[in-house]
Formats: sequence, structure tokens, C-alpha cells
Amino acid sequence: MSEQITLYSNVASPYTHGVELALLEAKVNFKKFEVNLKDKPEWYTKVNPVGQVPAITYGGPDVPPDQPSPESVKLRESTILLEFIAERFPEARLLPQDLVLRAKARLFIDIAKTKLLPAWFGCFRKGEPVEAVFVALEQLQELLPPTGFVVGEWSIADAYISGILPRAEIVFENNLNQSGWTEGQGQEIMAVLRGPRFARLTQYTQDLTARPSFKATFDKPAMTDMYKRLFASRAAAQKQ
Amino acid sequence: MSEQITLYSNVASPYTHGVELALLEAKVNFKKFEVNLKDKPEWYTKVNPVGQVPAITYGGPDVPPDQPSPESVKLRESTILLEFIAERFPEARLLPQDLVLRAKARLFIDIAKTKLLPAWFGCFRKGEPVEAVFVALEQLQELLPPTGFVVGEWSIADAYISGILPRAEIVFENNLNQSGWTEGQGQEIMAVLRGPRFARLTQYTQDLTARPSFKATFDKPAMTDMYKRLFASRAAAQKQ
Ligand SMILES: N[C@@H](CCC(=O)N[C@@H](CS)C(=O)NCC(=O)O)C(=O)O
Ligand SMILES: N[C@@H](CCC(=O)N[C@@H](CS)C(=O)NCC(=O)O)C(=O)O
Repeated sequence: MSEQITLYSNVASPYTHGVELALLEAKVNFKKFEVNLKDKPEWYTKVNPVGQVPAITYGGPDVPPDQPSPESVKLRESTILLEFIAERFPEARLLPQDLVLRAKARLFIDIAKTKLLPAWFGCFRKGEPVEAVFVALEQLQELLPPTGFVVGEWSIADAYISGILPRAEIVFENNLNQSGWTEGQGQEIMAVLRGPRFARLTQYTQDLTARPSFKATFDKPAMTDMYKRLFASRAAAQKQ
Repeated sequence: MSEQITLYSNVASPYTHGVELALLEAKVNFKKFEVNLKDKPEWYTKVNPVGQVPAITYGGPDVPPDQPSPESVKLRESTILLEFIAERFPEARLLPQDLVLRAKARLFIDIAKTKLLPAWFGCFRKGEPVEAVFVALEQLQELLPPTGFVVGEWSIADAYISGILPRAEIVFENNLNQSGWTEGQGQEIMAVLRGPRFARLTQYTQDLTARPSFKATFDKPAMTDMYKRLFASRAAAQKQ
């Protein structure tokens, strides 16, 4: 029998989504517990001392997720969880055997994490120029082979970005922002993303979202509603 | 025969130093080429399109470093290079076998990269409160076992931080900053780092710097001179 795995999750979280996809693709038995990020349960610091999702407990006795055992291993940080899942379930081939391709998968994740995410947050939160988002997306696009996923077969690189790109689209398509965008500004960004400059990335995003594991975990209309509410409540909080 | 490895380096760079240590500890044959970051050779974009060090070329014909072959693989990003070296030379045990310990090594690197470095840069470049540096260092310190290295044996986690901590000390000890610190401000920070709050980290830093690979690659007086000149030239550039 395999060690138990419990994923502490939040449906809005891009990072959590990537980890859940990796677990699903590895066909792992796991429990999922939705953490209310607006009102985090006190015990959650036992799972993750920094209070974020995703986190997993690994091993230990089979306990209810809201009663984490001191005997389980606690792991956090989505990129590290992805590596852990790939190594723990090698038969799922979530990372290629080839060392150079492994480095490529990691570079893709690194660019998404250290270039794309800060640029995207800067853009919709602080009104920074969207060009930094485009530059990061171009760097990612350049790493893609002519067809298929980042390293050919679907890997943790694709898992990681699957959490991000479809959520970024929702933000742009619905003009969601905390920095006073003009009407239609998000849609203009989206038009560029759907245009010739990002033709390969558009195809790639279609491939990502056509994946059964993705479809089973992403309800676009529901996510759109959630993001609209999230941004509305942030706007209300800002006004106070 | 092993594939050739050439490390593109700069002696001032913390990231490069970590990668060099990993190569030395793996007892790998490699060439090293010092890149002048103030006047980068034009051909260097062939090695690293984003122009940074460290980068490595791997495989391909045995060419002079300043004539990189199109046939070699080009890899960049220090953390990815560290993973690559650990995987390429498994007999050097630069990552433990145990998956949970591997995750721990990666978490240590992640905290150093995403918490410590931004806090350190924010502190000496922009005059942001040093407390963020202390918090990051405490997070790292908490991961350390009572004695020894991050995961017991020396690993890529120790390689990565070896490039950073001794350089941070030089910055603080010599009050080097670009944000108008008062006289003695850096030394006060250093006093905290040498005090009871960071007793375990101090011991750990001693262990890191006692390592033969470290001693062979770090000349503190020379590095101090270099950092002083570097900061003086930045200050002169700022005034223009
Ligand atoms: N670097 C972390 C980021 C995780 C993160 O930012 N999680 C957010 C949700 S998307 C969170 O838990 N926020 C709640 C909080 O920080 O209190 C990772 O990749 O796992
Ligand atoms: N995230 C990169 C950072 C590398 C980096 O910032 N390198 C600096 C030297 S410490 C550099 O090459 N600067 C020159 C430049 O960017 O033009 C890594 O970890 O490898």
C-alpha cells in the first residue's frame, strides 16, 4: 500500500491546480481538502507554517484532513511538490528521463514563476505595463517544440502553467484588475494573446486545456464568477 | 569519456559560485570562463540568450570557451544547473536518495532564492528594513538539523547558499549599500547575525566555509576589495 497523500487546496489557486493535475496524471489516490483562505482554520499552520496552499501531508496514519497527524511529512511550495510527485511516481513519467529535457522543463517552470507571475501580478494589481507579461510569454513560447508539450510528453512543466494561463485569460477577458484599467483594456491584451505574436502559445493552451485531467478540474464559468467576486471584494476592501 | 562542460562565470556572482562548488564537489572536469559583465562579449548571447552568468555548455566538440559550438547544449539558471549536476553525477550524492530530504533541500534553495535574496537586495539597494532578511534567515535556520548540513551530507542546498551568505557578510561588515545607510549600520546588522538569534546559522556558515571546495574558490580579502570597488562604481554611476 502506498503512503497516504492529502492535498490542501484552494480552487482559486493557480499553484494548487498544477499540483492537483500532477497527482491526477500520476493516477494517485489522494484526499483533497479545500482551505478557506479568508478564514484559515487554526490547525492549518501544523500543515504549512507559512499558511499557504498548496501543501501536502505524506504518510502517517489515515486521519481526517482537518486533524493532521504529527506523524505525516508536511511538504509545501508548488514547484517542490511537483518535483516530489514526479520522483515519487516515476512510472507516470511526469519528468523525462533525458537530463537536458529535465532541465528544459525546469527552466519553463522557472520562467513562469520568476518572470510571468510577477509581470502578471504587476499588470493587474499595480497597473504596470503589460509588455513584461508579453516578454515572459514569448520566452515560454520560444521553449515550446513545434507541436506538443514542453518536453514532448506532458510533464510537470505543463502542470504548472496549466494553473496559470487559463486564470490569466479570465482576468484579461473580464477586465479584472485592481489598478484602474480603462474599459476594454483587458480585452485588448487578450486580443494580442490570441493574435499572430502568440500563435504557438494559443495552440499550446488549447492542448493544455483539452487534457482530461484539466477538464475534470476547471469549470470556466464557475471560475469566472469566483474571480469576479474575488476582485469585487478586493476592490471593496481597498475602498475602506 | 564524459561530455565536456564549460562554466561561464563571474567571480563576484553568488549564483555562479554555488554552481562551481557543485562541479568541484562532483570532481568533474570542467573549463571555466570569466565573463566580463560590464562589457559582455557579443558571442555570449549564443551561450545564454538572457546574458547572465552562470551558464554552462554541455557536450559538443572541445572548443575554446569564447568560440562556443552550436552543437553543445546551453543551460542556464543556477538552481537548474545545480539539479542538472546532481542528476548527471549521481555518484557525487549532491542530492540525497530520500525523496522527503530532496524536497527539503529544494525548499531551502527556494527560500534562499525567493525570500532571502529579494530581502537582502531590498535592504542594501533600497534601504528596506533588514527585518525581512532576518526573517528569511530564520526560516532557513529552522530547516537546519542540530549539526551538519541541510540534509546531513553536503548537497546542492549548501552549494547554493555558500555563494550567498559569505557575500552578504562582506556587504554588511563593510557597510556597503546604495541606500544611504548611516555609519556602522551594516556592522549592527552583522552583530545580530553573530548573536544568539542566529547561533545555529553562524555554526552552519563556519561549516560551509571550512569546506575545501569553498576555501579553494573564495578569497575573502580579494572579494572584499572587489565588492568595495563595485559599490563605489555604482555610487559614482548613481550620481551622474
Ligand atoms: N510560492 C507558493 C505560492 C503559494 C500561494 O501564494 N498561495 C496562495 C493562494 S494562490 C495562498 O495560499 N494565499 C493565502 C495566504 O498567503 O494567506 C507556491 O508556489 O506554492
Ligand atoms: N536567476 C539567475 C540570476 C543570475 C544573475 O543575476 N546573474 C548576474 C550576476 S550575479 C548577471 O549575470 N548579471 C549580468 C546581467 O544581467 O547583465 C540565476 O540564479 O542563475
